[in-house]
Amino acid sequence: MEQIASGLEGVVVAATRLSEVDGERGRLIIGGYPVEELAPHAHFEEVLFLLWHGRLPSPAERTALAEALAARRALPESTQALLVDAARRAVPAMDALRMGIASLSLTAHDGTDREAVLDDAITLVAAIPTAIATYWRHREGRGVPPLRADLGHVAHYLWLLDGREADPAVVRALETYCNTVVDHGMNASTFTARVIASTQSDLCSAVVGAIGALKGPLHGGAPGPALDMVFALREAAARSGQSLDVETAEYVRHEVRAGHRMMGFGHRVYRVRDPRADVLGAAAVALGARGGDGTLIADARTVEAATLRVLRELKPQRRLDTNVEFYTALLLHGVGLPAELFTTTFALARAGGWTAHVLEQMETNRLIRPAARYVGTRNGRWPRAA
Amino acid sequence: MEQIASGLEGVVVAATRLSEVDGERGRLIIGGYPVEELAPHAHFEEVLFLLWHGRLPSPAERTALAEALAARRALPESTQALLVDAARRAVPAMDALRMGIASLSLTAHDGTDREAVLDDAITLVAAIPTAIATYWRHREGRGVPPLRADLGHVAHYLWLLDGREADPAVVRALETYCNTVVDHGMNASTFTARVIASTQSDLCSAVVGAIGALKGPLHGGAPGPALDMVFALREAAARSGQSLDVETAEYVRHEVRAGHRMMGFGHRVYRVRDPRADVLGAAAVALGARGGDGTLIADARTVEAATLRVLRELKPQRRLDTNVEFYTALLLHGVGLPAELFTTTFALARAGGWTAHVLEQMETNRLIRPAARYVGTRNGRWPRAA
Repeated sequence: MEQIASGLEGVVVAATRLSEVDGERGRLIIGGYPVEELAPHAHFEEVLFLLWHGRLPSPAERTALAEALAARRALPESTQALLVDAARRAVPAMDALRMGIASLSLTAHDGTDREAVLDDAITLVAAIPTAIATYWRHREGRGVPPLRADLGHVAHYLWLLDGREADPAVVRALETYCNTVVDHGMNASTFTARVIASTQSDLCSAVVGAIGALKGPLHGGAPGPALDMVFALREAAARSGQSLDVETAEYVRHEVRAGHRMMGFGHRVYRVRDPRADVLGAAAVALGARGGDGTLIADARTVEAATLRVLRELKPQRRLDTNVEFYTALLLHGVGLPAELFTTTFALARAGGWTAHVLEQMETNRLIRPAARYVGTRNGRWPRAA
Repeated sequence: MEQIASGLEGVVVAATRLSEVDGERGRLIIGGYPVEELAPHAHFEEVLFLLWHGRLPSPAERTALAEALAARRALPESTQALLVDAARRAVPAMDALRMGIASLSLTAHDGTDREAVLDDAITLVAAIPTAIATYWRHREGRGVPPLRADLGHVAHYLWLLDGREADPAVVRALETYCNTVVDHGMNASTFTARVIASTQSDLCSAVVGAIGALKGPLHGGAPGPALDMVFALREAAARSGQSLDVETAEYVRHEVRAGHRMMGFGHRVYRVRDPRADVLGAAAVALGARGGDGTLIADARTVEAATLRVLRELKPQRRLDTNVEFYTALLLHGVGLPAELFTTTFALARAGGWTAHVLEQMETNRLIRPAARYVGTRNGRWPRAA
């Protein structure tokens, strides 16, 4: 009897030029570039172009894409009304994003015409920041600032959320984050997008499915708790008078004995340190040095070091390193984003990968239809037929 | 180097008690019952209970589920407004269904509490017929008839679409259809729902993803064209004066030589006749005999016979049998549904399977995260870093 591949680990479902996750060596390649080479330097529009077209844009191409995105920032009225209503009812942010994006009507009604789907990708990516900000500003009881065309994709997201232009260092930090997490192999949301696209469905359906998968706490849902842990340990240390190091060590021992997973540590794929943690850690430190909450960075480093020390002591046979969630939380907090928007901001970035994977799936498409093993009975008779 | 399992054929991703598709023997088991035993006799509520609970309901349980569904037929105002707007803009029916269902806010915000998710399944399944009918009635420039609680799930769908109670034979035919297609192994939409659920995301996200996958022409999108072919051949035969048999044979020869796929014939899984075709064919004949379009049934049988004869002559090495789409189209047309609603009606039925698969996935969940093979370059240097 065949084995059940319930998590599909190691089952290769596609050849891709978009990213390579080398978990053994702790290396991540995005569109041909090591993440540490690409993420701190590129604008998000350049990374979008790289993933969609397989090469970096010329200056003219970069400008054209930035202008196309800027021109499509407005949402249809029905989508706006839905997001305002979602805010009024205080539905969770990822539900609101699912509602808003699902309500878009794109042009290509199936996945057979590459140019049309590429055009829809621009529309869809352009809509996400506006959708998040429309929801969030109304959650806060404020209207959305006027849309602008003179800011980049990431800078404009911060403009909409805040109503004032962000410091260039803050924009750079968030752009580095978006580039870092834009694509990451065949993760569950990306795979969802490809399964949906494999039926020749449309791009909007594929991305809405991916948003639904990213919402799950086992996938995109954990950056908030990692930061909460640092805050809670800071407070606990202040109360107990113990050092943050000792407080953390005691907490980790308690959690490990209780069988809990440490948020922000460990990853199913990486056996060594997640390379994204380095890029995001450096960006968070750079942001902290330019007027952010420098104490939080230092405290987070203390919590990280103490957690790793105790984990290695208690689980010497396992490699449990800091994962991307830990520094994601630190960076997004430093950028000024509320924890409620961490996962939606992840979606904003990952939409670049999702749309590129749909385009790639279209190139050599085959319907993705695995098998199941039936373990029920077979000979039921309908009672009334007797 | 590992092979790329681009369609995941034969890769067993789950053990299931919900259905067994035996393509070699042309057999389909649903919840322990052969489809021909279950589908023509059960009410759809009984099949829902069977899939959700693993056994048929007692009379009291059946009444309780029917009442719970009937009590939740109303849509939130924001969902109604969205569907009215979708109708006004004439967006395709599956896009409208995706929008409407994505806009629901269910109670359980993740997939960890079975009772809460089961309760959400009732809310979600109850909402689908109302969502389809709200969209469709406004497409037709008519309001939605008042919701009623004294009709079953399927009968009430027809009430909403039509504004009058359907003949019991029509309800029976549509109920047989819904039971027949309620679940079908690990198809692409069901797999999508399980991948999303595997992240511990919520039921609504999983079902919205599944709707997106079902929309694709390679999955749920083909029942319309199969019927169109019968209509077109009837007209062509009337024009040419040839018999429908000869007209069909000429058309099939032409299509096969042009390398086209014959809509309604062949299936990736079934090597022999799709057992659902028999059940639906019998239901369509029964419906035709009771006042429906009996000529259409006879003509469809002629087209089917001629098509199979020519396919076997031209492709003797392949088994190309009538699949479920052919008789689906005939049955749904006989029931009075417009072709635009064939795939949404498929979704109405399959929602029973999707929700049951999410509940089953929760029982022994493991994050579904396959692998990809990177085929790009690795040593890109950022230009400005030089």
